[in-house]
Amino acid sequence: MRFDTVIRHGTVVTASDTFVSDVGIKDGRIAALAAELTEADEVIDATGLLVLPGGIDSHVHLDQPSGDGIVMADDFDSGTRSAAIGGNSTVLAFCMQEKGQSLREALKIYHAKAEGKCHVDVAFHLVITDPTPEVLGQELPALVEDGYTSLKVFMTYEGLRLRDDEILATLDTARRTGALVMVHCENEDAIRYLIGRHEEEGKFAPKFHATTRPIAAEREATHRALSLAEIVDVPIVIVHVSNREAMEEIRRARKRGQKIAGETCPQYLMLTADDLDQTEMEGAKFVCSPPPRDKASQDACWEGLEQGVFDLFSSDHCPFRFDDPEGKLNEKGKRNFRWIPNGIPGVATRLPILFSEGVMKGRIDINTFVAVTSTNHAKLYGLYPRKGTIAIGADADIALWDPDKRVTVTNDLLKHGADYTPYEGLDIRGWPVQMLLGGRTIVKDGELTGPESRGRYLPRNRSSLTSSRGST
Amino acid sequence: MRFDTVIRHGTVVTASDTFVSDVGIKDGRIAALAAELTEADEVIDATGLLVLPGGIDSHVHLDQPSGDGIVMADDFDSGTRSAAIGGNSTVLAFCMQEKGQSLREALKIYHAKAEGKCHVDVAFHLVITDPTPEVLGQELPALVEDGYTSLKVFMTYEGLRLRDDEILATLDTARRTGALVMVHCENEDAIRYLIGRHEEEGKFAPKFHATTRPIAAEREATHRALSLAEIVDVPIVIVHVSNREAMEEIRRARKRGQKIAGETCPQYLMLTADDLDQTEMEGAKFVCSPPPRDKASQDACWEGLEQGVFDLFSSDHCPFRFDDPEGKLNEKGKRNFRWIPNGIPGVATRLPILFSEGVMKGRIDINTFVAVTSTNHAKLYGLYPRKGTIAIGADADIALWDPDKRVTVTNDLLKHGADYTPYEGLDIRGWPVQMLLGGRTIVKDGELTGPESRGRYLPRNRSSLTSSRGST
Amino acid sequence: MRFDTVIRHGTVVTASDTFVSDVGIKDGRIAALAAELTEADEVIDATGLLVLPGGIDSHVHLDQPSGDGIVMADDFDSGTRSAAIGGNSTVLAFCMQEKGQSLREALKIYHAKAEGKCHVDVAFHLVITDPTPEVLGQELPALVEDGYTSLKVFMTYEGLRLRDDEILATLDTARRTGALVMVHCENEDAIRYLIGRHEEEGKFAPKFHATTRPIAAEREATHRALSLAEIVDVPIVIVHVSNREAMEEIRRARKRGQKIAGETCPQYLMLTADDLDQTEMEGAKFVCSPPPRDKASQDACWEGLEQGVFDLFSSDHCPFRFDDPEGKLNEKGKRNFRWIPNGIPGVATRLPILFSEGVMKGRIDINTFVAVTSTNHAKLYGLYPRKGTIAIGADADIALWDPDKRVTVTNDLLKHGADYTPYEGLDIRGWPVQMLLGGRTIVKDGELTGPESRGRYLPRNRSSLTSSRGST
Amino acid sequence: MRFDTVIRHGTVVTASDTFVSDVGIKDGRIAALAAELTEADEVIDATGLLVLPGGIDSHVHLDQPSGDGIVMADDFDSGTRSAAIGGNSTVLAFCMQEKGQSLREALKIYHAKAEGKCHVDVAFHLVITDPTPEVLGQELPALVEDGYTSLKVFMTYEGLRLRDDEILATLDTARRTGALVMVHCENEDAIRYLIGRHEEEGKFAPKFHATTRPIAAEREATHRALSLAEIVDVPIVIVHVSNREAMEEIRRARKRGQKIAGETCPQYLMLTADDLDQTEMEGAKFVCSPPPRDKASQDACWEGLEQGVFDLFSSDHCPFRFDDPEGKLNEKGKRNFRWIPNGIPGVATRLPILFSEGVMKGRIDINTFVAVTSTNHAKLYGLYPRKGTIAIGADADIALWDPDKRVTVTNDLLKHGADYTPYEGLDIRGWPVQMLLGGRTIVKDGELTGPESRGRYLPRNRSSLTSSRGST
Repeated sequence: MRFDTVIRHGTVVTASDTFVSDVGIKDGRIAALAAELTEADEVIDATGLLVLPGGIDSHVHLDQPSGDGIVMADDFDSGTRSAAIGGNSTVLAFCMQEKGQSLREALKIYHAKAEGKCHVDVAFHLVITDPTPEVLGQELPALVEDGYTSLKVFMTYEGLRLRDDEILATLDTARRTGALVMVHCENEDAIRYLIGRHEEEGKFAPKFHATTRPIAAEREATHRALSLAEIVDVPIVIVHVSNREAMEEIRRARKRGQKIAGETCPQYLMLTADDLDQTEMEGAKFVCSPPPRDKASQDACWEGLEQGVFDLFSSDHCPFRFDDPEGKLNEKGKRNFRWIPNGIPGVATRLPILFSEGVMKGRIDINTFVAVTSTNHAKLYGLYPRKGTIAIGADADIALWDPDKRVTVTNDLLKHGADYTPYEGLDIRGWPVQMLLGGRTIVKDGELTGPESRGRYLPRNRSSLTSSRGST
Repeated sequence: MRFDTVIRHGTVVTASDTFVSDVGIKDGRIAALAAELTEADEVIDATGLLVLPGGIDSHVHLDQPSGDGIVMADDFDSGTRSAAIGGNSTVLAFCMQEKGQSLREALKIYHAKAEGKCHVDVAFHLVITDPTPEVLGQELPALVEDGYTSLKVFMTYEGLRLRDDEILATLDTARRTGALVMVHCENEDAIRYLIGRHEEEGKFAPKFHATTRPIAAEREATHRALSLAEIVDVPIVIVHVSNREAMEEIRRARKRGQKIAGETCPQYLMLTADDLDQTEMEGAKFVCSPPPRDKASQDACWEGLEQGVFDLFSSDHCPFRFDDPEGKLNEKGKRNFRWIPNGIPGVATRLPILFSEGVMKGRIDINTFVAVTSTNHAKLYGLYPRKGTIAIGADADIALWDPDKRVTVTNDLLKHGADYTPYEGLDIRGWPVQMLLGGRTIVKDGELTGPESRGRYLPRNRSSLTSSRGST
Repeated sequence: MRFDTVIRHGTVVTASDTFVSDVGIKDGRIAALAAELTEADEVIDATGLLVLPGGIDSHVHLDQPSGDGIVMADDFDSGTRSAAIGGNSTVLAFCMQEKGQSLREALKIYHAKAEGKCHVDVAFHLVITDPTPEVLGQELPALVEDGYTSLKVFMTYEGLRLRDDEILATLDTARRTGALVMVHCENEDAIRYLIGRHEEEGKFAPKFHATTRPIAAEREATHRALSLAEIVDVPIVIVHVSNREAMEEIRRARKRGQKIAGETCPQYLMLTADDLDQTEMEGAKFVCSPPPRDKASQDACWEGLEQGVFDLFSSDHCPFRFDDPEGKLNEKGKRNFRWIPNGIPGVATRLPILFSEGVMKGRIDINTFVAVTSTNHAKLYGLYPRKGTIAIGADADIALWDPDKRVTVTNDLLKHGADYTPYEGLDIRGWPVQMLLGGRTIVKDGELTGPESRGRYLPRNRSSLTSSRGST
Repeated sequence: MRFDTVIRHGTVVTASDTFVSDVGIKDGRIAALAAELTEADEVIDATGLLVLPGGIDSHVHLDQPSGDGIVMADDFDSGTRSAAIGGNSTVLAFCMQEKGQSLREALKIYHAKAEGKCHVDVAFHLVITDPTPEVLGQELPALVEDGYTSLKVFMTYEGLRLRDDEILATLDTARRTGALVMVHCENEDAIRYLIGRHEEEGKFAPKFHATTRPIAAEREATHRALSLAEIVDVPIVIVHVSNREAMEEIRRARKRGQKIAGETCPQYLMLTADDLDQTEMEGAKFVCSPPPRDKASQDACWEGLEQGVFDLFSSDHCPFRFDDPEGKLNEKGKRNFRWIPNGIPGVATRLPILFSEGVMKGRIDINTFVAVTSTNHAKLYGLYPRKGTIAIGADADIALWDPDKRVTVTNDLLKHGADYTPYEGLDIRGWPVQMLLGGRTIVKDGELTGPESRGRYLPRNRSSLTSSRGST
């Protein structure tokens, strides 16, 4: 067979295996693995490089309205560009239902935002903010059939958060349809109570973002979400776990027999609440929810990655410009932490950070890296076996990593819309030096290689977690 | 000194000690303990008997309106009569705020219900169902000062249950005033969700009361209540724990450093969900919340009593007549378990059951019996050292127990207003054969000894749990 | 390229991936994976079949002397034959040091036993029974360099068991050399104490094998082994875990940061202590150590497989004939359980049981099956990437499974030396219908396909557990 | 009645109660408690003072031979003098069996050591170092009947430690006789292994005493002791717990249903391993086993006292002179930490430290103080109700505490034989200003009040832990 492209002499890595092999690509898919493949229109020399499945970032916020004149720093163009630069070939973004809005309407808007702008493949999670009987009973079952097979609910943020009865109804729909529900677990009422006490005491600086969202509020909501899922008898994903206590709730739920996926993010490995406590408003750069905790929490999250508590390592990319009245330093935000938009950029730094701090420092092996950054995302969100691995028949979404390349993170490198990165100055070892999407190179040497945006929308199957196991 | 009464040759038992001593009573109080006290107007021979502090039942519902034409089976007359028969000298009943009602108004009503009717001493917990700023900010602080030092909130029952923000506000008031908050922990939304599923499936029998209120719903609410208390930084009481999972939440909270009291009840030692699953409507007799669970849960509750997880052993007496349109078998209740009034009688059987099953069967020692049935109630609810022990200066509220007396429980014995007892036919070893209240005999040989009702209302100090420890 | 053999149209399964692919074999190795490979000397049609890496059974006893005239039922011929029949292409057997014997001498003997007799590839673990300074300081370091990279120590069996100081010295040698230590965890002194009490009470039947080796004795030794490893700072493998309590010790050790591998076996999923309690001496067929426990323990072991507590699923094949004076029913064994030889046959049934009960019944997925039966064995015992996966460059050790084939287990099928199987009559769904070793078919349709024994001895690298992680 | 002595106007404290009462003493016993007792030969004004049962220190080493020319700093004279000064009226010392010695012989020697020298009442635990069938089968049963109802075994110290089979045999004797076994839990082999590694690395300073006896070695032995007790089915006492991990083992054992008592000591609340790391040999002053740990371990031990994990708070008084060739700085000890005698003085400081740091700082209440320093010792070691409380009929062993008295600890104050105290300079609030033994004052204002030694030997009943509960 003559291949369109052959990647030669690289070391192929999957979630379980590592072996030297050429990779033959035909019609955008992986067509052959063999010791030596010679006939090809294009040959990429991967000597000394790792040949990994492209990263899948299943937790990315792009072009979402934030109210109050706040503008998210990335649209689908800049966001997926930054994703590609950082080694990703697929992102799962959120389609946010507005109150009173049908999900179809919301999807129409988000498809329009994404259309023709995406540098990587894209799919949508549906954020349910208004779970009316119509939405749950009529729209959702049809949309799940159409390939929108994951939902997200919030237990925090006024206007977004659902009450327990609404969560139960949403979980019940998931149970009936096979959709997978992601839950943001923080107790909104507890946070508002603490904000009230802080305001009484004249505490307004960014650092109080952390003290008003304590671990107990996250642990409580995590246990509650897991308990509601237990009662409904449906799997869920606990997203962006920041600390040991919430992590232990996942372990406890699994011991009870529940099917649960867990996710953590780079900010919980690399940042702490101390980063929010800086002179001037610098701390605002690190405001995200849950907030970064402390060194012991970082250690816990590493343990969770190593020991399989976390299936997913995502960015929770949610970028705002810092020095901007539409961003972190808006008028109200400058006066009170509660008005600082929640979220940090991270879609480009996710993979290099985990590679450098995790693989190169010996905390996790390279197969675990592939699993938690790509394969598990594909399986849990219904994209497998098309995505998430180097195997015959899979899309030729491939990241070539140079494990020895040393990079110092600067904001310019990342090509996102934000005017800062929380990781400015971080020394990285290992970098994705070339990206293929569907067999075609989209990034090389840190730059996009073509003007056109080849990212496609991906309808999805049901999650491996909601499908019955044991089918071979 | 010449005593009004001397109890001779009995074995005095406190929460830590057991010793043979005469007890001298003067002016209603315990005035002397000595090997031999001779000068007395009245001598009670307690040879072969145990001399215990009268039982304090801190969880008793009396004469509460239940809506829908349901009538509680005991008023303060019959309820305290039954309490006295069963070895109690003090009960703490609930004063239930109606929506829109001020606490002062509610108290006025309950004081009127109790006035002149009580056979034992009485105090009130305030049930907060409408925690307005007025109630929490103005009324409660004043009432705590007046000696109403404990509150109760419900996380279940539509119309009664508070949302998390309301619970937080109530806990915050407790923190500011030193009141102690009791929490009924079951997740109402989860229960309603399950009721909906049961109704869809045509499941209406009494046994489904248990399956719609699963352990997970209790564990969830328990953890949530404990977490909210952690966030506010205030002690609470978890009442009527029915199973290991909820119990372990108390242990976990204490390991986090929280000050928590725990309570269990006879129904969780003696009944199971199988009792609700009987022919006809017999199961309705056992409908209470949380529902009885299973054998393993009973074992867990025994372990909790033995190992100090539970400070309190209460009845949660909440009596309804069975074969009565105003009781269990009301028109709606006969058709659907959800309309069967929640609650069972138990104020008279609490102590004999624990004595017989616990002390006589070697599961707990007699000092633990005194602690969990009397002393700890007095300390936790601000009645100590006036109540709860045999010590100089304490009220002469004394129960004389014959450890060898054998009794078979029948409803007639108990002298409450209900037409049944869940423990009909139970063989008991050990019985309170004589009760003194303030030094005067109120019960002898299973009968009230006088027509008058000598029970007094007891204003209370703050709880030992909310007071700083270490003062000597 | 022209291949020696191509396996066509099968579904290839690795520890993380499942995909349809042809497999091209050249010179005994896997040379290509591709949608279609046509040029081959031999074509195997795998339509409808699963193409799995051959099973690796890392816990197999063959041709070991047992003392007292007891003879093990399998030598390397019959044992590896049975292994091949059951879907295995590699077994790791034990080379048992005698007291006073050098390891070199022991190896010489075991190599001679195996030479020319093996139907599958073979390597040896070194059982250390006499850890003299000479053995630990001189012999072992050299042998580890020579590719004997794993050791085993016993905490039970008089004559075999090591004391703590000996275990510490052995672990210290492992730390210095990078060898991996397997530990059989049962407290010998506790067992002997209980045997004494049983004998006092006249309890001699086979069922008392279980009651004299209680879970507490296994949990104790497991925690002790893990603690000694923690103190020495070296990874270990806890073999043949039979119950939740021992399993939780592994979880606790990992939370402490220890690198630990865990193993369980079919007998702990399929048998219980009740199997030992049968009329006549039938129970002797199920005597192995640790003994099978109960239903809850089976559930725990399944949970451990599903949740990654166990990396390894092995047979602990240790066969004795039943109705034989040199086997289970020897003269002394008939009179007292303590003389019944410990061990059961299982090398042939390991994979079908896990496939049928695990994969086909939905308890684990097929990738987990491959991981715990093949890939993890290769990684943990230094055979990866040569063994344990379907990847370019790996030995073409391949099992073709028919997931729909139904088989009822009979002893005849298994072709081992024992005269019984503990699983007689068990219905199995899914069976390995063809086995390739180094690219050549060795089993087809339940029969060996050639007279010659092609199994090779495998020197090994160090374990992935003792090598530093993070190398890419 | 006319009393020999009346203590007036004090606040009596028991393990559960606190009340103002006069205490009447007659014939060495407590004869009356009453609001006002007037007729007495001697009146002690206790206005403003606490009237507590005298302290019982159940873990005291006196006049034990230590080998190698090391001499213990206290004999029964100085040791019990110091005990009395520090608020104790009873000590339980160890009678140490030598190898080959019968227990009767050992007792004869220790009785002779104590005879006529004791300032407080005394009883003996039997340390079993040579558990021959003769000792366990013949001597011990008779001695238990004679009132020597507690034993101790060591899992560490060469020459003292027992192997598991010996521990099992000893526990079995305890099971048969109702004796209570105390266990010193540290894994001797692990310690010796670590000492070996330290010596290889040239680490000889006192601070390495701590690193060669890590928490893992204590946790291991604790779990092992508890497991052996579980297997034999007998209660035990885990003495001198130093950290959370060992403490959690006690909690786990109780959850398994075992009857276990736990003990901690002042050194684990007040010292850390840093105290061993000082210039010159100062660190030798703090060498004891288990070694003090860290701040987190101190917090854990406080939690254990507060939450009932520890029933006993003892001194483990084991005094050696510091600057003395027969003490800490002997010739070998100066060169290598392993030869520094293990133990610190503490019988005088135990109670003031717990009172000041525990009660006065609000960590435990005064009733818990009485329980863990007196009442529980009496109950667990068979001295109750004669000892351990203020109740009718009990020995009039009474400590009068001035809760406001401030004392700075100096070695001179303590009147023991050591030339230092680990707590030199510690500020204490609360002090035992007067001690009565059997109704007669033995200490006043920090001095012994008479020349004669009135301490008696106390034969004992069986422990409350080994007696069946529930008898009333």
